[in-house]
Amino acid sequence: MEKIKKLSQEIVDILIEKKLKISTAESCTGGMLSEAITDISGSSQIFEYGVITYANAVKVRELGVSQATLDEFGAVSEQTCKQMANGVMKKGISDIGVGITGIAGPTGAVAGKPVGTIFVGVCNNKKTVIKKLSLNGDRENNRQSAVLEALSLVKDIIVNR
Amino acid sequence: MEKIKKLSQEIVDILIEKKLKISTAESCTGGMLSEAITDISGSSQIFEYGVITYANAVKVRELGVSQATLDEFGAVSEQTCKQMANGVMKKGISDIGVGITGIAGPTGAVAGKPVGTIFVGVCNNKKTVIKKLSLNGDRENNRQSAVLEALSLVKDIIVNR
Repeated sequence: MEKIKKLSQEIVDILIEKKLKISTAESCTGGMLSEAITDISGSSQIFEYGVITYANAVKVRELGVSQATLDEFGAVSEQTCKQMANGVMKKGISDIGVGITGIAGPTGAVAGKPVGTIFVGVCNNKKTVIKKLSLNGDRENNRQSAVLEALSLVKDIIVNR
Repeated sequence: MEKIKKLSQEIVDILIEKKLKISTAESCTGGMLSEAITDISGSSQIFEYGVITYANAVKVRELGVSQATLDEFGAVSEQTCKQMANGVMKKGISDIGVGITGIAGPTGAVAGKPVGTIFVGVCNNKKTVIKKLSLNGDRENNRQSAVLEALSLVKDIIVNR
């Protein structure tokens, strides 16, 4: 998708210029965000660590997401997304962390969380911004929309930093 | 790429049928392999854990790749690839591990390792198979070729298991 490529290039350029490192934690996008960023030549200077955490146990073990949060709010929630972004930023020893968790579809809907519910979060050491998406595309489109939204939030946070 | 999608679908179907779990460790492909596998609906049943380890320190910390191996053979080597595959299989508590490390280009060549040198490795609890690729496409093509090769090795090891 051309928009993803263009935005990834912009972000990599800014991160290199500002000497910032980024790490990503993805659930429903399964590596699509890290793939987009690392598709840009030179990204090895700024991409520190990426993790794909489908299973809840892996979110807890690798990112320090709290089991209590998962039990209370579920994996697809603002709270889990926030902990994923902050967890991967810390673990990756990076300046920026990104977390994505949601239901890409076509199956996986749970009560109150239809297919297309995706939380995207970006943080630095000062703040975390979480956006809730309610998408209605197919699996591929929903994943692409989430990645685009994540890249857009990353751009906001690094431009205004 | 249609071939990647087709092979991913086959692999996910076989893994589900055989109740096997897979984890992936990617360097130069930056998440493209995990993205391809998780693009298949139902993959959450078999995809356990994925990690993108660009930096050597992250290879050591997250996957247990030995610093001595990195010092002696380099990150782009059969030895490192083997340790990445086995490391992610163990850490992901999975039946199959995949490691990819190489130089996708256009820059990054080192003495004896031109752009397009990529090692792809797949393991189960009995064996590890490593393949050295010498590619001459652009960054995107080299990454796609490596992913296709990895999927092909995964298919071999799970069909013959």
